[in-house]
Amino acid sequence: MTDPQFDYADRIARAQAELAERGTAALLASVGSDLPYLTGYEAMASERLTMVVVPQKGTPTLVVPELEAPRVDPQDGLFEIRAWSETEDPVAIVASLCGSPARVAVSDQTWSVFTLGLLQAMPGTVLVSARKISKALREIKSPTEVVQMRAAGEAVDRVVDRLSVMRFAGRTERSLAEDVARMTLEEGSDHATFAIVASGPNAASPHHEPGSRVIAEGDSVVIDFGGTVTGYCSDTTRTFHVGDPSAEFLDAYAAVEAAQQAGVDAARPGTPAQDVDAVARAIIDDAGFGEYFIHRLGHGIGLDIHEDPYIVEGNEEVLEPGMTFSVEPGIYVPGSFGIRIEDIVVCTPLAAERLNRSSRDLRVVG
Amino acid sequence: MTDPQFDYADRIARAQAELAERGTAALLASVGSDLPYLTGYEAMASERLTMVVVPQKGTPTLVVPELEAPRVDPQDGLFEIRAWSETEDPVAIVASLCGSPARVAVSDQTWSVFTLGLLQAMPGTVLVSARKISKALREIKSPTEVVQMRAAGEAVDRVVDRLSVMRFAGRTERSLAEDVARMTLEEGSDHATFAIVASGPNAASPHHEPGSRVIAEGDSVVIDFGGTVTGYCSDTTRTFHVGDPSAEFLDAYAAVEAAQQAGVDAARPGTPAQDVDAVARAIIDDAGFGEYFIHRLGHGIGLDIHEDPYIVEGNEEVLEPGMTFSVEPGIYVPGSFGIRIEDIVVCTPLAAERLNRSSRDLRVVG
Repeated sequence: MTDPQFDYADRIARAQAELAERGTAALLASVGSDLPYLTGYEAMASERLTMVVVPQKGTPTLVVPELEAPRVDPQDGLFEIRAWSETEDPVAIVASLCGSPARVAVSDQTWSVFTLGLLQAMPGTVLVSARKISKALREIKSPTEVVQMRAAGEAVDRVVDRLSVMRFAGRTERSLAEDVARMTLEEGSDHATFAIVASGPNAASPHHEPGSRVIAEGDSVVIDFGGTVTGYCSDTTRTFHVGDPSAEFLDAYAAVEAAQQAGVDAARPGTPAQDVDAVARAIIDDAGFGEYFIHRLGHGIGLDIHEDPYIVEGNEEVLEPGMTFSVEPGIYVPGSFGIRIEDIVVCTPLAAERLNRSSRDLRVVG
Repeated sequence: MTDPQFDYADRIARAQAELAERGTAALLASVGSDLPYLTGYEAMASERLTMVVVPQKGTPTLVVPELEAPRVDPQDGLFEIRAWSETEDPVAIVASLCGSPARVAVSDQTWSVFTLGLLQAMPGTVLVSARKISKALREIKSPTEVVQMRAAGEAVDRVVDRLSVMRFAGRTERSLAEDVARMTLEEGSDHATFAIVASGPNAASPHHEPGSRVIAEGDSVVIDFGGTVTGYCSDTTRTFHVGDPSAEFLDAYAAVEAAQQAGVDAARPGTPAQDVDAVARAIIDDAGFGEYFIHRLGHGIGLDIHEDPYIVEGNEEVLEPGMTFSVEPGIYVPGSFGIRIEDIVVCTPLAAERLNRSSRDLRVVG
């Protein structure tokens, strides 16, 4: 899974500099994106522990189940490989590689069973969340990373345009979601990560699981989906309407579209993340739909589909060039309809640039 | 996602009895299968915490992001719902629901960031792995659960039989894996969980990620895949050969097939799990391939694809009726070929019964 265009040695050096600055002896990364970011290797999510131990100084060691060791590209000594057999205790191996330092950081998605095991195996060591280190390393994307994010965005935009000419009425949400996943692969994503198809009253559930409901005339249909290109995530949402929408729906749609534009316009370097949320939220409030916008405006995105920076009230962090995040206001009226419009943007030195460019106008379908 | 055929109230009562017996104040379950087992609701894997707090006595509370609350079936008061808004701290909410008890159990797949957050928020409380509770609740399947497991097995067996008449040569591993996933859905699984297609030298990597390698005459091809039916997992492996195999390959295949049969024969109630591993391993050792069988014989399976009981050296646990697990010996000769045969079995009062019944004979394909 390593890609020669990424400089993993530089990434590890930056991680080690962060560890030194924070007085942390090692970074332990398992499932999640810190591990592939640093090594090009992605852990299988499993009761068999895969974990890289990145010490503040020296060569990292990848602790990996013996049967998965053939998957690992050892990258000319960038890290050592410690394959463990089925009768060994991988937590003890990691603890032994760490020694007994004061402080070690553990990546956020590591399974609890391993975190609790490490706490027992390293009684004198404080385990802390690696989130601040992950953020320092991964929040600002390099030009090479932005190229991947752009390609990921273009691939899903093509799917959106294909959806616009398809027939929705009479199909189940689940079958349409399967089509979305298939087209995501056909249009150039390496993986189809998720596909929400939420129709009619279900569209008022922002994270609806596509089910057996048959889409019908008069429904709004929120389609939110994404894939990956070279590991980097896409994530876009468009709202469709089967047949002619009501005046109330059009009012709400106009508010969401205006809020999305205002959010993108506000997402400039130097602006606190929460201000971007506030600008977009004010437009929906003013249109009278404020109580129905029940989630933050957006989230950072990169190797993880959700990562820093979060565009949410309370996040005073200032936007910087190279940050990539979603701008996705929505209105969800329980029992009635839902609307969401989502683009990923990259903050440039001057402004936010959209990485999704499919039309944001309402798409009326049959 | 709740299913009326399962008695969630009974499951919660059993969890509470386990908590009482273990002197543990509460069970905290997030991503993974403890949560859907107890409530019918599956958490989205996300930086937004979803977690059920099951106290030793009284009504559980599901802490869930507000935007995901519409996904939850509240099940007539089986549990309460505490939806948290984007500006609240869900870890603080969970800690407050727990109080300050001596001991709380956390499900194994919970993200580390939440476990570490709870440790900080509950400084007087010891957090322990919930594995023993999960095991006590879920390891022995009810007759209703076995029905699901059987249906899941039959659905993937049909895919295996369709594969046998397909042409392999000239196709990439990835495209064949996509076909496997598609057929897994077509043949009745609700989800296609994974599909390993490992060809030629790649077949010696037990958990190979299907890639761009083009399958050719002379390759062995290990296909290991599964799906779910009503949440319950399937997992089966068959080995194919493109064109005529060598004598060495046939010897190795015969050893794996005999080891698999011996493992199934040995998997009777009262037998320690590690003895089943040993019986199968001895056959591969005797055939001279022992060094190439680099993983345990099997794993329990149910709502999780890997769960207790593990069929591995060192596990002295005794098999009991209702346990479901894989029997999957393999031989992996680096640079050359790989072979694995895997069935799920259920331990009955008399013997192990296969839940996969497709032919285990070598399948020669074009």
